Amino acid sequence: MTCGTVHGVGLGPGAVDLLSVRADRLVRSARHVAYFRKAGRPGQARRIADELLRPDVIEIPLEYPVTTEIPFDDPRYKACLAEFYAQSTERLLALAREGEDIVVLCEGDPFFYGSFMHLHSRLTGHVPVEVVPGITGMSGAWNATDVPITWGDDVLTVLTATLPEADLERRIRDTDALVVMKIGRNLAKLRRAVAAAGREQDAWLVEHAAMPDQRVTRLAEAENVTPYFSILLIHGQGRRP
Amino acid sequence: MTCGTVHGVGLGPGAVDLLSVRADRLVRSARHVAYFRKAGRPGQARRIADELLRPDVIEIPLEYPVTTEIPFDDPRYKACLAEFYAQSTERLLALAREGEDIVVLCEGDPFFYGSFMHLHSRLTGHVPVEVVPGITGMSGAWNATDVPITWGDDVLTVLTATLPEADLERRIRDTDALVVMKIGRNLAKLRRAVAAAGREQDAWLVEHAAMPDQRVTRLAEAENVTPYFSILLIHGQGRRP
Ligand SMILES: C[S@@+](CC[C@H](N)C(=O)[O-])C[C@H]1O[C@@H](n2cnc3c(N)ncnc32)[C@H](O)[C@@H]1O
Ligand SMILES: C[S@@+](CC[C@H](N)C(=O)[O-])C[C@H]1O[C@@H](n2cnc3c(N)ncnc32)[C@H](O)[C@@H]1O
Repeated sequence: MTCGTVHGVGLGPGAVDLLSVRADRLVRSARHVAYFRKAGRPGQARRIADELLRPDVIEIPLEYPVTTEIPFDDPRYKACLAEFYAQSTERLLALAREGEDIVVLCEGDPFFYGSFMHLHSRLTGHVPVEVVPGITGMSGAWNATDVPITWGDDVLTVLTATLPEADLERRIRDTDALVVMKIGRNLAKLRRAVAAAGREQDAWLVEHAAMPDQRVTRLAEAENVTPYFSILLIHGQGRRP
Repeated sequence: MTCGTVHGVGLGPGAVDLLSVRADRLVRSARHVAYFRKAGRPGQARRIADELLRPDVIEIPLEYPVTTEIPFDDPRYKACLAEFYAQSTERLLALAREGEDIVVLCEGDPFFYGSFMHLHSRLTGHVPVEVVPGITGMSGAWNATDVPITWGDDVLTVLTATLPEADLERRIRDTDALVVMKIGRNLAKLRRAVAAAGREQDAWLVEHAAMPDQRVTRLAEAENVTPYFSILLIHGQGRRP
């Protein structure tokens, strides 16, 4: 019997017609579909694919362990996640070894800060793994502002708001164009860093890019809370004839 | 009579099934299709869309002026390009005002170092303009290496190889993950900068990502020439449980 393939499929930023044609075909024809989600939540990737799934699809939700009680820098946090990814890998491996193909739904592009990467590194060498790139959340975000992100020889820096405030400030000072991911609870810190770098007037907050509740706000006018799916942008102003 | 819409449509990195479903529909149904190309060349965006175009499509090639005799930093270079973008805008404006929709084919994502941006800024406010984001060339490139680009809180820096060597070196030293675009004739300079930053062993050169002649080489083993469609990558090594 031949082994099934695990497909890590990028779904793009949110709209169902922003899947690639390749991703659309794979998702529509998949019998086994896996995706990450937080306990009790539908999961963003699952939501994007909602209307595409076969009626007889078999779903494999991979639920992140509840880690809210363990501090982020505690070694137990890492151990808990490692155990979760190892178990998820085992589930998919077992199924693939029975000859079944599995589509893993991935928000955005799978290889850009994606959870699928933790399965990819564990599956590789054991079963065939194929990855379909996707439109990133940041492309969705700058598209939502209707302003290009980089011109000419602009430097683009992509940061996560989980970095220390001083690092954020230094890097924001030193770039033409900026993307900040993983904002959520780090909004207040990020805001201080942007202000300290003197760039608050140039910064935009994009929430739920390409999703039904997409929202674009100037950082200066933004509230104090922002959802997990939000991105901060500063557009480059480079060379343009 | 209602005015037509100009659609700037991202086609992704090269493979025809990496267009988004939205882009695929727009390109297949378009009567008027415009694209940039160098004189005497087919144009990369036109090539990607080849098998999708309607038999009765009306093509509008926008040919870059030949500027090889004018040095890049000469004001005449800029004036020549500005004139070209102004004329291209006029052509599309006239057609849209006759009520025709126009699809402008864009390689990758239109708002990420794209030529369409020069039309977008000139057309906006005169006729309706809509942009469809696309999978970027860099997503195609890291997908081609089969290795994720960013983990955890990795910093990603995107540079163009047109920058001065010292700037390249300084920024390559100071990032976790790296993407360098627009390499072509700047390969020797880029190579020196990567080596000076001590990262030659980590760097990959991806030529024609997601195209039939895709090629992935370690920078240390690469030749001295690389095509226009090539990207240098250094993968991030960040946090992973
Ligand atoms: C774990 S990363 C996944 C990134 C994804 N693989 C991509 O290619 O965009 C999650 C972060 O991506 C960003 N993000 C992804 N899609 C987004 C969207 N549609 N709107 C706003 N932010 C998004 C947010 O900053 C979020 O915290
Ligand atoms: C004018 S920029 C256009 C970028 C495009 N809008 C995008 O989203 O990737 C041209 C540069 O993009 C890079 N590039 C775009 N697509 C590529 C591909 N499929 N393979 C390799 N390089 C690519 C090359 O570095 C090239 O010099």
